[in-house]
Amino acid sequence: MDLNADLGEGFGRWTLGDDEGLLDVVTSANVACGFHAGDPDTMRRTCELAAERGVAIGAHVGYRDLAGFGRRFLDVEPATLTAEVLYQLGGLDACARAAGVRVGYVKPHGALYNALVRHEAQADAVVDAVRAYDPTLAVLGLPGAVWLKRAEVAGLPVRFEAFADRAYTTSGGLVPRGRAGAVLHDPVEIARRCVQLATEGTVTSVDGFPIRARVDSICVHGDTPNAVAIASAVRQALTGSGVKLKPLDRENRSLTA
Amino acid sequence: MDLNADLGEGFGRWTLGDDEGLLDVVTSANVACGFHAGDPDTMRRTCELAAERGVAIGAHVGYRDLAGFGRRFLDVEPATLTAEVLYQLGGLDACARAAGVRVGYVKPHGALYNALVRHEAQADAVVDAVRAYDPTLAVLGLPGAVWLKRAEVAGLPVRFEAFADRAYTTSGGLVPRGRAGAVLHDPVEIARRCVQLATEGTVTSVDGFPIRARVDSICVHGDTPNAVAIASAVRQALTGSGVKLKPLDRENRSLTA
Amino acid sequence: MDLNADLGEGFGRWTLGDDEGLLDVVTSANVACGFHAGDPDTMRRTCELAAERGVAIGAHVGYRDLAGFGRRFLDVEPATLTAEVLYQLGGLDACARAAGVRVGYVKPHGALYNALVRHEAQADAVVDAVRAYDPTLAVLGLPGAVWLKRAEVAGLPVRFEAFADRAYTTSGGLVPRGRAGAVLHDPVEIARRCVQLATEGTVTSVDGFPIRARVDSICVHGDTPNAVAIASAVRQALTGSGVKLKPLDRENRSLTA
Amino acid sequence: MDLNADLGEGFGRWTLGDDEGLLDVVTSANVACGFHAGDPDTMRRTCELAAERGVAIGAHVGYRDLAGFGRRFLDVEPATLTAEVLYQLGGLDACARAAGVRVGYVKPHGALYNALVRHEAQADAVVDAVRAYDPTLAVLGLPGAVWLKRAEVAGLPVRFEAFADRAYTTSGGLVPRGRAGAVLHDPVEIARRCVQLATEGTVTSVDGFPIRARVDSICVHGDTPNAVAIASAVRQALTGSGVKLKPLDRENRSLTA
Repeated sequence: MDLNADLGEGFGRWTLGDDEGLLDVVTSANVACGFHAGDPDTMRRTCELAAERGVAIGAHVGYRDLAGFGRRFLDVEPATLTAEVLYQLGGLDACARAAGVRVGYVKPHGALYNALVRHEAQADAVVDAVRAYDPTLAVLGLPGAVWLKRAEVAGLPVRFEAFADRAYTTSGGLVPRGRAGAVLHDPVEIARRCVQLATEGTVTSVDGFPIRARVDSICVHGDTPNAVAIASAVRQALTGSGVKLKPLDRENRSLTA
Repeated sequence: MDLNADLGEGFGRWTLGDDEGLLDVVTSANVACGFHAGDPDTMRRTCELAAERGVAIGAHVGYRDLAGFGRRFLDVEPATLTAEVLYQLGGLDACARAAGVRVGYVKPHGALYNALVRHEAQADAVVDAVRAYDPTLAVLGLPGAVWLKRAEVAGLPVRFEAFADRAYTTSGGLVPRGRAGAVLHDPVEIARRCVQLATEGTVTSVDGFPIRARVDSICVHGDTPNAVAIASAVRQALTGSGVKLKPLDRENRSLTA
Repeated sequence: MDLNADLGEGFGRWTLGDDEGLLDVVTSANVACGFHAGDPDTMRRTCELAAERGVAIGAHVGYRDLAGFGRRFLDVEPATLTAEVLYQLGGLDACARAAGVRVGYVKPHGALYNALVRHEAQADAVVDAVRAYDPTLAVLGLPGAVWLKRAEVAGLPVRFEAFADRAYTTSGGLVPRGRAGAVLHDPVEIARRCVQLATEGTVTSVDGFPIRARVDSICVHGDTPNAVAIASAVRQALTGSGVKLKPLDRENRSLTA
Repeated sequence: MDLNADLGEGFGRWTLGDDEGLLDVVTSANVACGFHAGDPDTMRRTCELAAERGVAIGAHVGYRDLAGFGRRFLDVEPATLTAEVLYQLGGLDACARAAGVRVGYVKPHGALYNALVRHEAQADAVVDAVRAYDPTLAVLGLPGAVWLKRAEVAGLPVRFEAFADRAYTTSGGLVPRGRAGAVLHDPVEIARRCVQLATEGTVTSVDGFPIRARVDSICVHGDTPNAVAIASAVRQALTGSGVKLKPLDRENRSLTA
């Protein structure tokens, strides 16, 4: 099992979250690539901190939208999106190389993450970019997302994630934010669910039913006030239950530059 | 002898110069990397057009200044500049890889080009970035520039360029723009000087003295109205005089991805 | 009747269209406000050129999307859109004041123009911004657009425009770009249609039926190769038919700063 | 005496400092205008919060440099700088009008603040912008700065500020940051100095000499961890000593829109 979080989400003078604290807990870091957040300075430093700790580096690619933090759908042309993802991938990989490692996987951010669940043209665009850059790169996302199906067909290594602090419907989807109980806050409860995910491969829905979940990685949030505390609780519960944690990785390739 | 020009200098809806026309003439293309000009779409297309023609791809790295087209000195921290050059290099190299080739060399743009002639901290910063990304990448610039001296010490392959349409002082510097006669406009005269540069290794100064010039590449401008005509005149004169044209290239490494 | 065109659509080093040529022909200029195009330098110069010629200045407000030239739908929060339109309005009005005049009307650009035809939340957001800034400002757009209905209810002066070079369906909508015959290219035919619009208040649909059209202003395009020639043909035909041209203007308020 | 602080320095997802806390203490708010920080949303909300409290709104204009937070010198053309300051002024004033008030004064930010102390061309450029926008706007800065001399000649109302937490040399300059004792941290000591400034018009230099200081406003910093505590201590000490606090204001003009 892998533990991933969004990191390097500052920009210039502005910071967000406790990157060093989280890097001591997670095994994979989704690093912002400069389009929705993350300046090159921050990207380089985050890669160095991750490399020192053996944390895998994922390209957290997003829409070109600093003002909106990549959280607003942008009706970008697929060819443009492919080029933008290529550029972000290359930019982050250069920072990773300078730290003696490589980008290991790709996870879209925010509104792009959501769009790729259904938007076929954008899904193909992102898959094209990853394959053109390096077909051994893994892709990480929500089970059932159209872009992961396309990635599988394209021969990319596909990894699935679950959210530690989100409630699931009985059909396996996420309870929409804003609805009561959509987001869990109790570290003990969150940790317990993660152990169930890792050891039994199931999650209990809001209605109390067990759902089968294919999960390679658990996503813990990085920008909440007690993010490090929750991530630590999850990590301790997992390792205490005998779950072995290891970073996400590209297939058939070492992480060294 | 190599012939280089600045290309891919559009951004989004805006274009600049006749990229396809120039790519049929030059042997090396300095491609804008998104910080002073060049969106990923343009970068990718320029790399594809260059790859089709066997034209070498150089990273035309600049200050983060789209509004000023990278033509204004920016007092950026050296560590930040290193990270920004790394990012631009990686971003362009990803586009080059997608086109089946690789970035072959680095040439700074505009105000950064000028700053690196004397600014030691920024010079070191750029050299650090190139070396960290790939120490077989060549660097291209003005003979005597401090950043090329540092690059040489750092073991990077160093290449020198002369400007086809600029007048030189007797001490070997460029006559500053704005002074009378600083920029040449007659294609025949420009072409004649380029042949002299390539066959005799000299340029005649504004005062009529021959100056020894170490030149691996001649830079033709891309954004003047008759840019393609001048570049073609230079190319024809060079090949007509038996000068063999070949692209700039990284040392000990093939251009294929 | 008014004649309007999009102007000041350059950004930094990049230019677009022949602004001075068009300003000699049109009576109202839709000036880009820095979010999809237009830097303050260009905005100020365009306002000065317009002021010298007695051309009315309209705020051509757009999404925050330089890379996409404001041509991509952006799912921005209404409150954010209101603030962004306020900011663009104020920024352009400052340039207009420095030229001794004032912004006279508001016309949205590109994807925002299209969104406001139906998107109620964004329509309200833009109307809120105009009203908060100055309720005597006119708003210019397509007859039937939801944002103009809201503007009318809000008490803003509403002006309607038709497109000189676009074909209309029998139901009064624009034939979508890309469909055969959607865009007209013959200056004589375009000019003839404009005269019909101005003198008879009708346009002939692609199917040959006359449609009643309420039109205060005719939009000529500014970024096509023969833009000035077409605009001049339209102007000559209109004045030759006895149509009096006069700039769009805010109600009950002089244009002086 | 006036008490001013930099506010509204967030951008999109990113926040900086406790704006509401500070607005309860200061009498004038220097609000970022979108070029070095501050999106329109933040600008509008900050203007509303200031208006509710009767706090004067100043345009905290800066270089176009979000990535560097306006803290790096940018060698921008004077005409461009004039247009950029006009644009920022107009943008903020639109937000202020929507809150029922107006921008009352201008204070440059960061590297521009420092450049204007000596850089004559940029000083003239900023003065030109303020005068063109509204010659009744006050300008706020460091006594002796060349831009304030130009502003005085241009007939703008000039106001001088001192820094609550900075040490002064005997010649009246600021002890450069980085030197020992340059920045004061003890709220009691800072408050005591402010009272001396307000009641005696002097400040004691690092060498122990009293220096005469012409001060209309005291600047408290907004982005330090205990910013609100220090600002409150200063305010209490001033009012406890009988100093009357009142906002900076434009001359001969009411603050209502």
